[in-house]
Amino acid sequence: MLILTLLAAQAAAAQSAAASQGVPPPAGPPKTPSEVVAQAPATAWRGIPADDLLIIDLKTGGRIIVQLAPAFAPVHVANIRLLAKSNHWDGSAIYRVQDNYVAQWGNGESEKPYPKGFVAAPPAEYHRTLKGLSVRPLGYPDAYAPKAGFAGGWPMAYDPKSGTANLVHCYASVGVGRGLTDTGNGGELYAIIGNAPRQLDRNIAVVGRVIEGIERLSSLPRGTEALGFYKERSSDVPIASVRLASEIPAAERPQFEYMDVMGASFGNYLRLRANRKDDFYIRPAGGVEICNAPVPVRRKVAGERG
Amino acid sequence: MLILTLLAAQAAAAQSAAASQGVPPPAGPPKTPSEVVAQAPATAWRGIPADDLLIIDLKTGGRIIVQLAPAFAPVHVANIRLLAKSNHWDGSAIYRVQDNYVAQWGNGESEKPYPKGFVAAPPAEYHRTLKGLSVRPLGYPDAYAPKAGFAGGWPMAYDPKSGTANLVHCYASVGVGRGLTDTGNGGELYAIIGNAPRQLDRNIAVVGRVIEGIERLSSLPRGTEALGFYKERSSDVPIASVRLASEIPAAERPQFEYMDVMGASFGNYLRLRANRKDDFYIRPAGGVEICNAPVPVRRKVAGERG
Repeated sequence: MLILTLLAAQAAAAQSAAASQGVPPPAGPPKTPSEVVAQAPATAWRGIPADDLLIIDLKTGGRIIVQLAPAFAPVHVANIRLLAKSNHWDGSAIYRVQDNYVAQWGNGESEKPYPKGFVAAPPAEYHRTLKGLSVRPLGYPDAYAPKAGFAGGWPMAYDPKSGTANLVHCYASVGVGRGLTDTGNGGELYAIIGNAPRQLDRNIAVVGRVIEGIERLSSLPRGTEALGFYKERSSDVPIASVRLASEIPAAERPQFEYMDVMGASFGNYLRLRANRKDDFYIRPAGGVEICNAPVPVRRKVAGERG
Repeated sequence: MLILTLLAAQAAAAQSAAASQGVPPPAGPPKTPSEVVAQAPATAWRGIPADDLLIIDLKTGGRIIVQLAPAFAPVHVANIRLLAKSNHWDGSAIYRVQDNYVAQWGNGESEKPYPKGFVAAPPAEYHRTLKGLSVRPLGYPDAYAPKAGFAGGWPMAYDPKSGTANLVHCYASVGVGRGLTDTGNGGELYAIIGNAPRQLDRNIAVVGRVIEGIERLSSLPRGTEALGFYKERSSDVPIASVRLASEIPAAERPQFEYMDVMGASFGNYLRLRANRKDDFYIRPAGGVEICNAPVPVRRKVAGERG
């Protein structure tokens, strides 16, 4: 969670340390988005299914965890699950890091055979029908779409007139690399590591978002070739394995939950994201962009039911 | 400049190589923002004064160049110039890198004496009067302000009703670190290395933007302490020197120019930023956020007048 005091670090650090040591937060209603998240009751959270968690282990030891979005790109996500289960990406690499844009990995043109059931040419899952989604409107104007809002654990744009909705490209969003005339098959994935490139919305399949370890991608050296590709293969960042959490023994599985966007806690969170009121802020904006109000995610608290 | 084809890298790389080798671009009007920039006539560009260029040389050899914005934060910028001229920052460091937020450097609480003329407590230059600015409206809604647009070389938000304008926090924007009750004095600076944190607008002094070398900041290891501060001083990234370009002998000075936002070239650039039409895009958005249409800047072409 971003804490926005820029210089007065010591006070904030002390506060954060106090919070992590179980000191009760100040009395009264939460004043900041972080306080809303910290104080949200257990009922405000929804477990993320183990089949929706993609675990990428780098050879150097770091881990990146992606939450998949099967409700928005079912065929691409099914492909991604099949690739993980068949160890397709083990030994692949991150080979492109373009500043203020994307980190990209995988091996879409691998010579490994694709697993049974893999769809070589998925449909263009760039948007879906609005029907069936419970929508929390953002409530502020969007430069790219008629409306912005949230459904499930996801930020999205939508058009009530045409009845369509699409995931938006925010920081840490994960999409499927594609060529000029295809939709990509899921073998090549990218994560956004810069300002939200919303112009990509509805032009490419968004399949999820990085919920842990995005800094392992965003701090990688930038590639020096056109589009941020690494010049030498020796610069590639090797991937040891990619697995679904559901493939890991239950006791070792990382477990996550996201804040229910239809609940009161998320409503408070969103209101305070648009109207910052902690000691640092002099003038709350009275508005927020969809990508500046990320749906809160946390490691599941032990002892809670899923 | 971002090139947006994600997977079809080879074609784009070839095109880019051709451009840099002086091969004429394809005939006809420009189809992409990059082509507009490449084809813009000399009259579309405005030189950046040498006094507005802050040159940060890292001890490890890298260089970061910041364009200052005296029209928006004159007292803070005057302080920054004085600090550069008095070698105040030589031997300081980058000591904070917070993912999807800021890299911060300097030594605001240095024990070095401040130079003569330094203003210890500058006014809150968080916005200015709209009067005197030639404004190119963005033309699309903004979630944070009544209007967004451009003036000089700068992206800004403004309110025709109150007659005020302010620089906005975009990727690579540079601002002045401050405490809870002061405005900062310019001794501590930060650059944005993530999604535009527009909630900071009008709450802190924006004094410029990184126009070269932002990737040297954005790819730094993230700090592990609260707010992204480095835990150990040995993790700090040492700064060898900070100078104004005007302090460097004319023959060695880096020279830059930005695209005039009131000109026809910038109008075309903006239109195509909002309506991507290259071979990759299927659905142009028909809109753009202020921070996704950065004012083009380039190294000055040799032989041109300044």
